[in-house]
Formats: sequence, C-alpha cells, structure tokens
Amino acid sequence: MNNKPLILVTNDDGIEAKGLRALIESVKPYGRVVVVAPKEPQSGMSHAITVKTPLQVKKIDENDDLIQYECKGTPVDCVKIASNQLLDRKPDLLVSGINHGSNSSSSIFYSGTMGAALEGCINNIPSIGFSLLSLDPNADFSTSRHFAEKILGKVLANGLPKSICLNVNIPHIPLNKIAGIRITRQTKGFWKEEFDQHTDSLGRNYFWLTGYFHNDEPDAPDTDEWALKNNFVSVVPLHIDLTCYDTLKKIQYWNF
Amino acid sequence: MNNKPLILVTNDDGIEAKGLRALIESVKPYGRVVVVAPKEPQSGMSHAITVKTPLQVKKIDENDDLIQYECKGTPVDCVKIASNQLLDRKPDLLVSGINHGSNSSSSIFYSGTMGAALEGCINNIPSIGFSLLSLDPNADFSTSRHFAEKILGKVLANGLPKSICLNVNIPHIPLNKIAGIRITRQTKGFWKEEFDQHTDSLGRNYFWLTGYFHNDEPDAPDTDEWALKNNFVSVVPLHIDLTCYDTLKKIQYWNF
Repeated sequence: MNNKPLILVTNDDGIEAKGLRALIESVKPYGRVVVVAPKEPQSGMSHAITVKTPLQVKKIDENDDLIQYECKGTPVDCVKIASNQLLDRKPDLLVSGINHGSNSSSSIFYSGTMGAALEGCINNIPSIGFSLLSLDPNADFSTSRHFAEKILGKVLANGLPKSICLNVNIPHIPLNKIAGIRITRQTKGFWKEEFDQHTDSLGRNYFWLTGYFHNDEPDAPDTDEWALKNNFVSVVPLHIDLTCYDTLKKIQYWNF
Repeated sequence: MNNKPLILVTNDDGIEAKGLRALIESVKPYGRVVVVAPKEPQSGMSHAITVKTPLQVKKIDENDDLIQYECKGTPVDCVKIASNQLLDRKPDLLVSGINHGSNSSSSIFYSGTMGAALEGCINNIPSIGFSLLSLDPNADFSTSRHFAEKILGKVLANGLPKSICLNVNIPHIPLNKIAGIRITRQTKGFWKEEFDQHTDSLGRNYFWLTGYFHNDEPDAPDTDEWALKNNFVSVVPLHIDLTCYDTLKKIQYWNF
C-alpha cells in the first residue's frame, strides 16, 4: 500500500513538452505521480472534450512512483479519463503545465492548461495551472520550477478551499530578478484580433488568427498583468461559479 | 445607412441546425442580422480557438437584413472573425444557439454555445446563449422561440450590465406547460464520467466518453437545475471574472 499523495500531471503542449518534464521533476518529491498528457499539442483547446470520436490511451512508462500515459485527446479528456478510468482513487492534487506561454487575464478562457485545472476543480480535486511567460519550446524552466515547488509545498501543506484552483504565471527571468510572489486578481482585458487574409488558388479566402492583448486596467497593482510586468510571480485563485450575483439581484424583477 | 440594431448570430451545432434557424427567425424582427456559424457541428468545443490552421469563411446568403457566413472553425472563431473582420461595426447584440441540449450548471464549461456567448461578453458585446433541453435534431423549437423573442426584447430594451452575458435554458415542453421564467444561479454539480472500453484489432484500448450529471444541490430552488426540473425557463447572468475574492483575501498572507 502506497500512502504518499497521488498527484495527477497533465498539460496542453503535449507529452513531450519541456514544460511538462519540468513539472514532473517539481512534483516527484511530493508523492506518487501519474502523468496523463495529450499525445499532440492542444494549445487553445480550452475546456473542449472529445465527443465525436473515441479516446485512445497508451501507457508509455511505469516506474515505482511515476506512471505515464499519452492520450489522443484534449487536456480535459486527459483529466476525465485519468480520474474516472486510469487512477485507482481520486488524486490528492492535479497540476497542469508548465505551459509554454502566459495564461494571465482572460487567456484562461482559451487555455488548455487552465481548462485541465478548472476541470480538476469541477471534480473537487485541488488543482493548479502553471504557465511560463515564454512560448519558446526550449525556454529555461529553472525559475518556474523553483516557484512550482514552493507553491506545491504550500498547497499540499495548507490545502485549497473546495472548488478553488490556482492560476500561477511565472516571468521568464532569472531567479534573482524575481520580485516575489503576489496573490492577484484576473485583469480585465481581451485579445484584439487581427486576421491576416490570404486567397488560395481557387479564390477562396483564408484567415490566420493573430492579435495582441488589450489591458483595460494597466495601472492596477492588484492584477495578474501588473504583477507579471513588474517581475512578480502571479497566483490568482479561481472559482467555477460564473454566476454574477449582483446582476442576478438586479434583473430578478424584470417584468416578463 | 441602416440604423437598426446589428445582431450577430452563431451556434455550435453548425450552420444547418434547426435550432440556429429558429433563433434567426426570433431575432429577425429586431434588426439587421448577420449569421457566422460553424460549417460543421462543434459540440463540446467550449472556448476553443483555431491556432494551428487558417480559418476558411464563405458567404452563403445575402438579403436586405440577413447575411449568412459559414466558417470552418469553432464557435469562438466565428465570434472573433465576425467582430474583427466581417462586420462593419461592433454588434449591438450577440446570440448563440438555440442549442440542441441543455447547458445548465457546469456544462457551460464544455459548451460551444456558451463559449461563443462568453467570447462576446469578453469583447463587451451584450450576449445571450440559448439552449433547449432536447438533443433531438428535429426537436420542437416553438416554445424556445417564444421565450427567446421575449428575452431578446427585454435585453434590447434594458441593455445588459458591462461584461455580463445570459445563459438561457428552456424546457422541451409545450408553451402552456411552462411555469414561467426564473432568474437563477449556476447549480453546483459535475459530470460523472463512465468510459466504455473497447479493444481494436491491434489490441489497442479505446474509450468512449459517456456519463451522467451529478447535482450537488438538487433541492435548491434558486438554481438553474431546479428551475428546469420544475418547468421554468432558467436565466443565469454570468460574468467573466473567475477570481475568487474570498480566497484571494484568505491566501493573501500565505508566507512564501
């Protein structure tokens, strides 16, 4: 019988991503680790699930305290099949990442990394998404590993409130340049899209999605964007109840 | 110059779905309508965006007050390309649906219908997602059309607070059986997955996602699930800030 904490690891950049490898190393000291990660990169897949095709899952590695599966599906598929099929019990912790690229502000809606963390949260598993502010496949994960270990230790020691997960973003700078850890809120902002238009040989229009992030409140020091711009590690506690209770009260008496 | 409200219509069941046709009929009396809907069904695609391939968009119909495009992409892609590329100005209203199937409780996380509505909300467009409690492609949309028109009229008259969208679910019963409209909150609950396991001719395991909804609070009369079970139309106001402010205060002083 193994009494160590059971830790589920997933990501959206795929089973071979450097960020996933970094996160596995970070969690190993804390317990028994099961990795269930997408076979292919799944960036931008948000909370998508596979409903039209079956899921294929393959065990690719098994050691004493580390089992690894690859899954032909989305990050949320990985969490669902892990917690309902592959694991012998509910995990004590779910960690997703370390993502190659920021998932601050409203980017959490598009992010497969955060999709997986929110899915853990929906299923009452303490969950954390980790993201590094670099899209480079060969980014340096040493700073992010340091803070992942620190935050993991804190969460395993203190627990998380029910139905709460953490969105952790980490600047891509050397450890000695980090200003500290800040508990922040989700910045108000959105992606301003600009589509590159092309025409194929049959005269059909094609569009490539590009864009930039527009921050509605760049000077608010309690936001995740401000923290990251000022070299802090940002930790945003997220919940999964999207109800706006103020509006609920206001429109309660709409006369239908 | 056309001064009528500009209304963007999309869905996740695809351009040919009966529910989309019903919604177009519901919004037509209110303004100039532009439909940008997925070419293929996109159920379960959540807030996913297409980042690895270009988007193909084709105008398939144009009349005085109705233009229709099909887009080889997700519901959120449709909203992005509509509001940033195809429309001459920001729409006054975005409506998504009418979905074939419920999107109550935590199903909003998986739903392409609600992905599109939330994307509108992120972009400061008043947005409403409509869903009918029937998965049948030939479901009867007469009751849902009646309430869609009623709620659309109310929203166009009163507006919606900034960064708020509505999640409207409608029972699949005759109009005279509907108990009324209730403004509700998102029910606490989750999908309990059960995977059907199969083995292919090469001995590889395949899993089909199935499952049932587990309601954590079946007796709470202020929830969307309770309202729908009791023949009410449910309207949940949603916001896009997932920060849990209570937890933010609690963990502010974690000693890192």
